[in-house]
Amino acid sequence: MPGVGPKSAQRLALHILKRPEAEVEALAAALIEAKKQVGLCSVCFHLSAEPICEICRSPNRDHTTICVVADSRDVIALEKTREFKGKYHVLGGVISPIDGVGPEQLTITALQRRVSQQQPQEVILAISPSIEGETTTLYIGQLLKPFTKVTRIAFGLPVGGDLEYADEVTLARALEGRRELD
Amino acid sequence: MPGVGPKSAQRLALHILKRPEAEVEALAAALIEAKKQVGLCSVCFHLSAEPICEICRSPNRDHTTICVVADSRDVIALEKTREFKGKYHVLGGVISPIDGVGPEQLTITALQRRVSQQQPQEVILAISPSIEGETTTLYIGQLLKPFTKVTRIAFGLPVGGDLEYADEVTLARALEGRRELD
Repeated sequence: MPGVGPKSAQRLALHILKRPEAEVEALAAALIEAKKQVGLCSVCFHLSAEPICEICRSPNRDHTTICVVADSRDVIALEKTREFKGKYHVLGGVISPIDGVGPEQLTITALQRRVSQQQPQEVILAISPSIEGETTTLYIGQLLKPFTKVTRIAFGLPVGGDLEYADEVTLARALEGRRELD
Repeated sequence: MPGVGPKSAQRLALHILKRPEAEVEALAAALIEAKKQVGLCSVCFHLSAEPICEICRSPNRDHTTICVVADSRDVIALEKTREFKGKYHVLGGVISPIDGVGPEQLTITALQRRVSQQQPQEVILAISPSIEGETTTLYIGQLLKPFTKVTRIAFGLPVGGDLEYADEVTLARALEGRRELD
């Protein structure tokens, strides 16, 4: 499990052994229940207990903008900002030939179908800027450009960061991505 | 001295006491010499051993773009990217009323004079996005907009960073600053 090394694992195991039997059974049942209940939204592939997730069902969300992310974690991170009012599309990973992940292992075909059917005004690619992330961004960009406006999130100095501590590539991107002051 | 706590200070002091006298004298002389020699460039206020610094004197640098930074450290950081070919202007700090630093304590008047005389095509504000940095950026932006195009560096996800680990303000800025994919 991520973030759980041998020591933490032993601590967790010993903790569970000390709890009353009913409590352990409740935890086991909850795990099975969660696994059974939580699937993927059939529209955006975000984690959801319903066939269509809450965000996709909400009438208050702007359906003319789709934000494409690699993972459900990224939906949660973006939702925390309370800045984005559109819909999402979760790819289920990024294109990574070295790990055997091509476009067909991701939900890219479904995204293409969704975009050509719903004709959103804008698709925002919010994919982390790793080599695989860049490849995925460029691939999807090429694919969707005939259908809609495709944008990507900004790269540059993190807010609260200091110029002096930024790495050179980030600084170069921050310079390159400069914008006119309003 | 920055980055030198009591333990490091003691280690440095004991190290110096162990060196031969001639070496210690050479170090002392070098310190005095450096302090004597290194002043500020009279054009851009970057550290310089000459009255006008190497960057300002260079005929290979684009004089139509001036990049405004808070500190000489930032010039060094930007030079490392090898992306920027223009000239600089070092403010000598940021506007911070709480520390008693107003526009008149910085080289802002000199910048305004420089811009109105040289009429550069663009002034890039590359100031760290702290509260004081933002104030300084907005202040200089207002001041220079009648004379030239004023841009600021991009804020967003650092390159190699992960969406999940970005703080909410940075993510919001990355979304807000999104750009169309070329």
